[in-house]
Amino acid sequence: MLYIIGLGLADERDITVKGLEAVRASERVYLEAYTSILMVDKQRLEEYYGREVAIAHRETVESCSDEILRDADKVDVSFLVVGDPYGATTHTDLVLRAREKGVRVQTIHNASIMNAVGATGLQLYNFGQTVSIVFFTENWRPDSFYQRIAENAALGLHTLCLLDIKVREQTMENLMRGRQIFEPPRYMSVSLAAQQLLEVEAARGGGACAEDTLAVGVARVGSADQLIRAGTLRQMADYDFGVPLHSLVLVGHRLHDLEADLLREHAIDLATLDAVLERDYKIGSR
Amino acid sequence: MLYIIGLGLADERDITVKGLEAVRASERVYLEAYTSILMVDKQRLEEYYGREVAIAHRETVESCSDEILRDADKVDVSFLVVGDPYGATTHTDLVLRAREKGVRVQTIHNASIMNAVGATGLQLYNFGQTVSIVFFTENWRPDSFYQRIAENAALGLHTLCLLDIKVREQTMENLMRGRQIFEPPRYMSVSLAAQQLLEVEAARGGGACAEDTLAVGVARVGSADQLIRAGTLRQMADYDFGVPLHSLVLVGHRLHDLEADLLREHAIDLATLDAVLERDYKIGSR
Repeated sequence: MLYIIGLGLADERDITVKGLEAVRASERVYLEAYTSILMVDKQRLEEYYGREVAIAHRETVESCSDEILRDADKVDVSFLVVGDPYGATTHTDLVLRAREKGVRVQTIHNASIMNAVGATGLQLYNFGQTVSIVFFTENWRPDSFYQRIAENAALGLHTLCLLDIKVREQTMENLMRGRQIFEPPRYMSVSLAAQQLLEVEAARGGGACAEDTLAVGVARVGSADQLIRAGTLRQMADYDFGVPLHSLVLVGHRLHDLEADLLREHAIDLATLDAVLERDYKIGSR
Repeated sequence: MLYIIGLGLADERDITVKGLEAVRASERVYLEAYTSILMVDKQRLEEYYGREVAIAHRETVESCSDEILRDADKVDVSFLVVGDPYGATTHTDLVLRAREKGVRVQTIHNASIMNAVGATGLQLYNFGQTVSIVFFTENWRPDSFYQRIAENAALGLHTLCLLDIKVREQTMENLMRGRQIFEPPRYMSVSLAAQQLLEVEAARGGGACAEDTLAVGVARVGSADQLIRAGTLRQMADYDFGVPLHSLVLVGHRLHDLEADLLREHAIDLATLDAVLERDYKIGSR
């Protein structure tokens, strides 16, 4: 059996009981390490599981699925994914290959930021499509997310923005020379995401993510150290949310009074928030 | 401390390790019993937790939050919610009351259908806003979901339809006479939801959920007995998905080839699915 197991959001105890039992019964355990991270390291997981954990990089999963699936028709193998297993396409790929090989697959679900973002007080019903924001480079500034944000905004819906993570990056020189030397991992901050959004807005001018658009930044959701702050996108660009992971929500105009009440509890600056709520969202202060 | 704990989707072992530890350390444990259900009964939870579990009906949570929060500044109290705690508004209300009373609140997240629906093979990025479909009665046939489905469809996005559950319903006679006698719980099936959607489509005529619209029905997601079937809305209306809980996804036209491949694995009837994919979704058969 191939178990595809969501680990949830924060630490080793966010795995479900069912998931933990599957891991402990597995002959081999892989941890997918390129779409998200936990707030604890591999060693802590290994101690807790009582199992060795092999890190599966993107290239491992894409090119070495035979190794991951080896003998999985006879023994149990666990493939661990931070959050819920079905955020990213690649695992679907692994599922399809398993089926081709006659390996049974069981998914053990868990929380992902897609539902945990409800902790902001914004209602999940009022979210439109989710977007990803990648690190801009000098020559590569993909902004296709803008269209989707604008579509959500036109309907008055919130947008969850998932922020890029870069692991195992190589400098051009190391890449050219074939050296397996990797740069330190990078995780996009709310602040950088807001700056990039404002830059795209300045170029596109549609008003979907402007300086005064309300936003909610979140960091380390699901951990004891979780941080939620509401304010304008301009404020987000200047706010330090601390260590990763971060996500950003753009607040749509269908915002309800009850949602606004909860945003106030997280205001970076209540006067600014109330002013924008009243002027742009037609929600009076209490 | 008030712990608000997601139980996940299927049975008593879908709780997280962190959640289980909190429950076992709690003086009182409440189970919210009106927005969703597990596939196991209260007794099984009580045996597994080693704790008595009090069922919290909607009216309990709304009118007796003082009792739920009693002494929660001194002892631990657990409030259990099937799925993730932040699907429904009412828990937000409980959180706000706790804060007013100076009770600390910790949320322990878990899977909900909002992310677990990725098990269909449809990508979470391609979903628009989620809608709820309630049981139609002779005199009450609210169809405000149609507008939202149409908005999603116009953008080519998928729509997750959450299906009504009715617990503690009273007949008009029992209600009038003040008798605490309740009807058996009812859970909307994929089949009934599809019939209601087709009825609304016939009245509205926008084409957002027509006979040939592709849909994916799911039942008992996250359990060993999970069922996923893809077909037209007409087929859904006639298909028996078995015991609860059910959800329904309407498939948008931005459907990718990889998503279509996975739908084919779940086809009620492959020829019909391929024909609609080719004609309406411009995706050729393999």
